[in-house]
Amino acid sequence: MDAHAEPAAAGGLATRLAIRGGAHSGSTAGLAPGFAQANLAILPRAFAADFLSFCELNPKPCPLIGVGTPGDFSLPALGDDIDLRTDLPRYRVWCDGALVDEPTEISRWWRYDLVSFAIGCSFSFEQALIEAGLEIRHITRRCNVPMYRTSLATSPAGPFRGPLVVSMRPFAPAHAIRAIEITSRFPKMHGAPVHIGKPDLIGIADIAAPDYGDAVPVGDDELPVFWACGVTPQAAIANARPDLCITHYPGAMLVTDRRNVDFAAA
Amino acid sequence: MDAHAEPAAAGGLATRLAIRGGAHSGSTAGLAPGFAQANLAILPRAFAADFLSFCELNPKPCPLIGVGTPGDFSLPALGDDIDLRTDLPRYRVWCDGALVDEPTEISRWWRYDLVSFAIGCSFSFEQALIEAGLEIRHITRRCNVPMYRTSLATSPAGPFRGPLVVSMRPFAPAHAIRAIEITSRFPKMHGAPVHIGKPDLIGIADIAAPDYGDAVPVGDDELPVFWACGVTPQAAIANARPDLCITHYPGAMLVTDRRNVDFAAA
Repeated sequence: MDAHAEPAAAGGLATRLAIRGGAHSGSTAGLAPGFAQANLAILPRAFAADFLSFCELNPKPCPLIGVGTPGDFSLPALGDDIDLRTDLPRYRVWCDGALVDEPTEISRWWRYDLVSFAIGCSFSFEQALIEAGLEIRHITRRCNVPMYRTSLATSPAGPFRGPLVVSMRPFAPAHAIRAIEITSRFPKMHGAPVHIGKPDLIGIADIAAPDYGDAVPVGDDELPVFWACGVTPQAAIANARPDLCITHYPGAMLVTDRRNVDFAAA
Repeated sequence: MDAHAEPAAAGGLATRLAIRGGAHSGSTAGLAPGFAQANLAILPRAFAADFLSFCELNPKPCPLIGVGTPGDFSLPALGDDIDLRTDLPRYRVWCDGALVDEPTEISRWWRYDLVSFAIGCSFSFEQALIEAGLEIRHITRRCNVPMYRTSLATSPAGPFRGPLVVSMRPFAPAHAIRAIEITSRFPKMHGAPVHIGKPDLIGIADIAAPDYGDAVPVGDDELPVFWACGVTPQAAIANARPDLCITHYPGAMLVTDRRNVDFAAA
């Protein structure tokens, strides 16, 4: 226990308890400022080794920050008293690769053989960008970040394969450079962007029509900047077709007790 | 003295001695790989304090890595036996702000009151970019880097004021991001870029017509990336009009005994 332990536990835990109690069912962006958030993928044990390989092979979209033991819905490395069945605002349930439900808790779906994977989230680096004086367009406009399926392929592992999904934030050029510098310090939160400008080069035909989340305007004096996104595994899971898989709903993340700064590179 | 001291002294010193002997009168790009190079500005003592302020106020174009004592043409902090009168391939001599000569040595111009300022150079970070697998267009094409006067103003100090001058290197977007990450580790070599894409936003009307150096092609699938340039002081000196000023000729730098890696941030 260090001097930071108590406020860290309070910020993340209090937020999870509020979500568990039904106080939030939307995006977790901006909740528990300073505390890391995570994408979630829960898979049967039979798929765990291949999915682990998929994450290792694709560290920019899938930076692992925690893995549960089979059947265990806690994740002690990321926080006290985490209950992955109830502590996210909303989930997606996939059967044989098809989306079947988007519930606010998943107790009835839980199984003894499920393994939980927590993947770093760009909401963490957004706070560092705001502290540097940058405007995050989807936060200013109070909507979800725009996300796109690209023409870039992930590295396949077993049955897991599919396109890289990216999130997009527009910035004036000097701010784009600053955003690249800052996010390169957070390799466990997707790190530096994968693309900048020229959306067509990565298969994005219409920047105003994201595949997930909400469109935001990009000014003539701005460049769209694209980061690898933790929704990428959801596209791979649709291809792998496990009998059961549970993910977070895009934007509705696991709020942890770990501080963002704990994940910053030196 | 550490284990690296001897090869460091040999690489930089041998190159300077060759230049002193008349073996090179062109660009120093690619000479003494691994050793830092520097822009040079030599000014009368009466202008030294204001020029020092100008560098402090404009650390991206003017990152100071060494300052001489008045009248001294050595720079022991940057290398053994440096003679600033003879050790650069070519110089520019300015009288009252006007360019009057471009000699290969400046012994006849030296004065007891001259103060020498060595400013970090982008040639240093170019080696790090090449080691990361990036192509540097002007090196591939064996020409000088293109440089442009911009519409961005420097912060003035006393009589020193003028536009920011930038150097430009084109990269595919993913390589541009990598270049930003790498150069941000070299704050004493101009650091991260100041602009990317959209040259018109910083007053560059025609990317094919640089104000200094040589034009290089920019592909449709590439972005021009702009770094603050050590030629910036030359524009400020033209405005300050000291009775005498001596600078390096663009591209013909001081080769030091200090290793590039010694200037990298943690």
